[in-house]
Amino acid sequence: MQLSTPRIFSREEIEQVIQRSEVLTAIEAGFVLYSMGEVQTPSTTHLQFENPDGEVHLKAGYIVGEPYYVINVVSGFFNNYATYGLPNNDGLMLLHRRETGELVAILLDHGLLTDIRTAAAGAIAAKYLAPRHVTAIGIVGTGTQARLQLAWLSEVIDCTEVVVWGRSEERLAQYVEDMGDQYHITTTLEMSYLTERCNLIVTTTASKAPLLFAEQIQPGTHITAIGADIAGKQELDPRILYSADLVVADSINQCLEFGELSNASEMLLRVTELGSVIENPYLQRQNDNQITVADLTGIAAQDAKIATLVYRRLLERE
Amino acid sequence: MQLSTPRIFSREEIEQVIQRSEVLTAIEAGFVLYSMGEVQTPSTTHLQFENPDGEVHLKAGYIVGEPYYVINVVSGFFNNYATYGLPNNDGLMLLHRRETGELVAILLDHGLLTDIRTAAAGAIAAKYLAPRHVTAIGIVGTGTQARLQLAWLSEVIDCTEVVVWGRSEERLAQYVEDMGDQYHITTTLEMSYLTERCNLIVTTTASKAPLLFAEQIQPGTHITAIGADIAGKQELDPRILYSADLVVADSINQCLEFGELSNASEMLLRVTELGSVIENPYLQRQNDNQITVADLTGIAAQDAKIATLVYRRLLERE
Repeated sequence: MQLSTPRIFSREEIEQVIQRSEVLTAIEAGFVLYSMGEVQTPSTTHLQFENPDGEVHLKAGYIVGEPYYVINVVSGFFNNYATYGLPNNDGLMLLHRRETGELVAILLDHGLLTDIRTAAAGAIAAKYLAPRHVTAIGIVGTGTQARLQLAWLSEVIDCTEVVVWGRSEERLAQYVEDMGDQYHITTTLEMSYLTERCNLIVTTTASKAPLLFAEQIQPGTHITAIGADIAGKQELDPRILYSADLVVADSINQCLEFGELSNASEMLLRVTELGSVIENPYLQRQNDNQITVADLTGIAAQDAKIATLVYRRLLERE
Repeated sequence: MQLSTPRIFSREEIEQVIQRSEVLTAIEAGFVLYSMGEVQTPSTTHLQFENPDGEVHLKAGYIVGEPYYVINVVSGFFNNYATYGLPNNDGLMLLHRRETGELVAILLDHGLLTDIRTAAAGAIAAKYLAPRHVTAIGIVGTGTQARLQLAWLSEVIDCTEVVVWGRSEERLAQYVEDMGDQYHITTTLEMSYLTERCNLIVTTTASKAPLLFAEQIQPGTHITAIGADIAGKQELDPRILYSADLVVADSINQCLEFGELSNASEMLLRVTELGSVIENPYLQRQNDNQITVADLTGIAAQDAKIATLVYRRLLERE
């Protein structure tokens, strides 16, 4: 008997089966299982490039008892758009049968599922950690995640007042053009303008130095930091983590390696994992004065959950 | 502009463009470039499974100045054949453009290119380390690599006298049926029968304990050990490495992590890399009494070289 040929699905096919509510449920379950030790995953592997700058992230893992293991390959080459007019990101996910290692499906998503599971994680963090009344949502950055995080937050947060910070007037204007129909958006080049008005902040940049500082953060603010996903990236002043009431990591190990926590490792004893926060109300926000931070680096449990869900839905459509 | 859809090639298409001599040249160049520091590659990542036993190896890397980076995914699920009649191995290689991260080709080789680059490495090791006159080739094991290593040795060693060791009479008989047309093959269940007659030995098993012991090895023997490719596997008594005149690793770092060298790390200062051996005659076998050992774990430089060569040949055929 021969190994079968894998099924191959395009980004367009994958896009059609995404339903936000069930994706959120699946990803949330993935975080819980990860924090229960039910996810087998080696360390994330990175390839880094200079001239032109680029990076590749390889994540692999499986949830104990589930039928597939998943490998996620995603690249970021940061001059693609400027140099070639190409998207900066590419990627794919591979589903293998856990019993036999057979490759059953190639999800040629060009990074879409990684973008989505990252946005879903931001929404889940906000669900458990944002203050009850969000005055305005602050988005730091103007790229793909700056859009997707906002879009997915609407699943859990009822607020359409938005402040967006960016470095380029042109990109800020483009952001408003793309997102302005559904939100009331103010743009700014000054971070303090954003931090004064927003008590739910999502940082989505590839910055290598802090963009937000401790003295700027108002009591009651929740910050989700998703930019730092490889050694060298950093968006938050470590003093924000030191002074926060709650610091939550998607994976403590991974965030210590290359998340915001890697710049604040003395915090270790005070950090909880998102999976534990989801399961335990005592680990969630307790009042509207606490400052909370979620450090999200992206974990294989999210990949395994979203790839398996999408594959099942793709098969059902046939 | 959108990212392009990758080209997808089947195992059958890939098989048709394999030419042994140019594969050997390319892989040899890969080892040299690796030992010169011209290959960027993170640590190999493994996923391990129990019930049923399985393992997945993820290797990624690129050669500085070459147009593609390559990711190799290969799995071994050791009960596949017995339980389902399926091959134990599956795999694929992904070629991405180094400038942009675009996925340009998926080589759906089901592990073929990994098998071939491993066999090619064995031939290259023998080319520089085998004694001038090989009395008989000893093959330890009866699986895919036991066949391929012998087949590829014929590119560099002119000897058709073969002793094959295995644990199962049935699998030994099958080996003779498959390979007996081109070689004069004797089979044995006794390792000492093999070590007494052979001065070029290739070990190809998934053993987790030594199969060959120091006192069995005749002066003048070269051993290529390819089985140990993940923590816990071992084919050689560490005393073979301690007493050998030359010990060569495909990658010193990787062999220390999970090759035979991982059981003999005190050897570190005496080990050279295959790439250096290829380039430097003084590091090759010096006489017919030396005992030499090559510890091969498989490196991303081999994957990058074979995938790039095969992709180029596939495009030329169109």
